[in-house]
Amino acid sequence: MCCRCSRGVKIIPDIPSPHEIPDRLVDAADILILPGGAPGAKTFCQSEDVLRLIREFRNEGKWVAAICAGTTALVESVKSSRAEGEAAKKCKVTSHPSVKQEIVDAGWTYADDSERVVVDGKIITSRGPGTAMLFSLTIVEKLAGKAKRDEIQGPMICAETL
Amino acid sequence: MCCRCSRGVKIIPDIPSPHEIPDRLVDAADILILPGGAPGAKTFCQSEDVLRLIREFRNEGKWVAAICAGTTALVESVKSSRAEGEAAKKCKVTSHPSVKQEIVDAGWTYADDSERVVVDGKIITSRGPGTAMLFSLTIVEKLAGKAKRDEIQGPMICAETL
Ligand SMILES: [Cu+]
Repeated sequence: MCCRCSRGVKIIPDIPSPHEIPDRLVDAADILILPGGAPGAKTFCQSEDVLRLIREFRNEGKWVAAICAGTTALVESVKSSRAEGEAAKKCKVTSHPSVKQEIVDAGWTYADDSERVVVDGKIITSRGPGTAMLFSLTIVEKLAGKAKRDEIQGPMICAETL
Repeated sequence: MCCRCSRGVKIIPDIPSPHEIPDRLVDAADILILPGGAPGAKTFCQSEDVLRLIREFRNEGKWVAAICAGTTALVESVKSSRAEGEAAKKCKVTSHPSVKQEIVDAGWTYADDSERVVVDGKIITSRGPGTAMLFSLTIVEKLAGKAKRDEIQGPMICAETL
């Protein structure tokens, strides 16, 4: 099974479909990362499997990260009547500007537009393809520490300001 | 046929193997882009099909771009006794620092380390994962103009300095 990305790149996912997500995937993973892309994020929002996974990760105290339009799936997971406990909490987030209004309308605290990555509790969000490097390195830092981030970042020849 | 990237992402290439590259691919494409990754670049350097392709693109006046260790394939394509005309010219390039010495030793002009992307004639080179955004946008600008670059770059929320 192959997944065709919005620009035509064909990727083979490790799990072929949301219906085949193993029970208790949350036990095997440290973080759930939601990529962006407007059509992809819409698919996430409409998938009960994905929304359940987001709630599971939050309720088990695991990290959840979202970038670009991906933040809308996080927002959607809280709307559902099944959201309880940690998974029902609205925190401070950012996203692609094109979906900012719907996130604000849903009652979430929206970070200042100058914040390119936002960490609130165990939720990490970011803005778009141009902030993906900062988003990724922040995830590494939060999960594996600043030393590991520096070790990875050095040889990548990143810009001085991400 | 699936291509396993160095970090485990599985991509399905449009052309399943270098042996199946169509004749005169150069007529159908505007640019040949060589991605990096140390093992991948080594594979390029050892593939007579890839080296021939680089020479064809250069001799037909098409663009050739390389990033990270990818520049070594460009260098290798010139070493061969089959390199003639434009395809035999050594120009000003950059690369990942880890392969700088072999490029210098091969007699190419190596740009100052502060140059994150280098355009010399129809050769575009860049340094690493952290310069990939600048590399991509430079390719767009050279092939489709500054207006198209600006149109794409805006909604991507890029950093001010790439
Ligand atoms: Cu996006």
